[in-house]
Amino acid sequence: MMKLTVKSHQQTELIDITADIQRMVEKSGLQSGICMIFVPHTTAAVTINENADPTVKSDILGILNNVIPWEANYRHLEGNSPAHIKASLMGASEMIAVENGRLILGTWQGIFFCEFDGPRTRSVHIHFTKI
Amino acid sequence: MMKLTVKSHQQTELIDITADIQRMVEKSGLQSGICMIFVPHTTAAVTINENADPTVKSDILGILNNVIPWEANYRHLEGNSPAHIKASLMGASEMIAVENGRLILGTWQGIFFCEFDGPRTRSVHIHFTKI
Amino acid sequence: MMKLTVKSHQQTELIDITADIQRMVEKSGLQSGICMIFVPHTTAAVTINENADPTVKSDILGILNNVIPWEANYRHLEGNSPAHIKASLMGASEMIAVENGRLILGTWQGIFFCEFDGPRTRSVHIHFTKI
Repeated sequence: MMKLTVKSHQQTELIDITADIQRMVEKSGLQSGICMIFVPHTTAAVTINENADPTVKSDILGILNNVIPWEANYRHLEGNSPAHIKASLMGASEMIAVENGRLILGTWQGIFFCEFDGPRTRSVHIHFTKI
Repeated sequence: MMKLTVKSHQQTELIDITADIQRMVEKSGLQSGICMIFVPHTTAAVTINENADPTVKSDILGILNNVIPWEANYRHLEGNSPAHIKASLMGASEMIAVENGRLILGTWQGIFFCEFDGPRTRSVHIHFTKI
Repeated sequence: MMKLTVKSHQQTELIDITADIQRMVEKSGLQSGICMIFVPHTTAAVTINENADPTVKSDILGILNNVIPWEANYRHLEGNSPAHIKASLMGASEMIAVENGRLILGTWQGIFFCEFDGPRTRSVHIHFTKI
C-alpha cells in the first residue's frame, strides 16, 4: 500500500489528485493492472469527473450542498451528518486500470479527493493489483 | 465465493457487517489482497461509513428518505422505485484491501449492508483476490 | 482491455448492456475472476439495477432529474453540470465476479450504461482480472 497526504482548505472541496496518483503508479513499477484508490475517512470520498473546467467542481459541490442542506433535524451531535451521507453517495473507492504504466482515464477525466468536512489533513490509500 | 445472510427488520436500515466480513477474511486464509463485497439485490446496497455513533446511520437514512420521497408519481407498480434508486446511489459493491489477514479500514469506518425495501432476508457475496 | 460502443438516443437514458458484457466475458475466455466495467466519460456512468420491468429505469431517471434539476444557477457554461454530478453519484465503474465463465449477478440484476448528456456515441472499457 502507498499513502498520499491531502490537505483541504475549505469545508467542502474537490481536489485533483490525478498527477499524484500517476506518480505513484510510476513509483510502484506496475505496468499492467488495476489501481485502487481508497479513502479511509467517513466524511470524505473519491470520485472521477472533469478536470478541464474548474467550474464543474464548484457546480458539483453546489448541487450536493443544495440537495443535502447543512442545517436540518439531524441527530448526530457532531453536526456533520451531511458530510457522512455525501461520503457514501460519492463512495470510498475508485478502481482505475493501468496499461504500460499509465492510468487509463478518458480524455476529460480526473481523479478528485472529495472533502466534505474540512479543512483537514487527510490520507488516501493506493493499492495495486497486477492483471 | 462466500455468502453472508443478512436479516433486516425495518423498511430502510443500515446493518453493520464489518465483523462478519472480517471473520470471512480469516476463514478464507487470505493474507494480502482485495476483498470485494457484492450485493446481488436491486433494492439493497453496501456502503462504508462511521460505525461509532449510531445516530450517523439514522441521519443517513433520514436524509436519503427526505431527498427521495416514498410517494411520488412513480410508474413501477411494485411501489418500491425509491428503493431502486437508493440502491444505485449507494452502489452494489465495495472493495477493501486486506493486509496480514485484516481488512484495511479507517479508524471510524465500518461496512454497512443497506436495506431499502425490507424487512427481508438478504444475501451478500464476498470474493477475494490475492495481490 | 476490451471496448464496447454504446449509442444513446435520449438526453438521459439507461441502456441495458448485460448481454454485451456477458458476450465479452465469453470472448475473453475468463473462467474465474473479476470483470471491471469502466466508463471513460464525465457525463455518463454505469450502474447495476433491475432489468425485468422497464418502468424501474424510467423511475430512476425521473427521480434523478427531479432531485438535480436541469435549470439552476450553474457556473459551468456548457450547461451540463447536472450530467456531471449524476455521473459521480452513479459512479464510473462496476465490479462483477465471474465464475465458470458467467457474470455472477442476482436474479433481477442487469448492468446499465447511464447516459446523462445524450444523445451521443459512447465507449465502455472492460477489464478482466483472474482470481
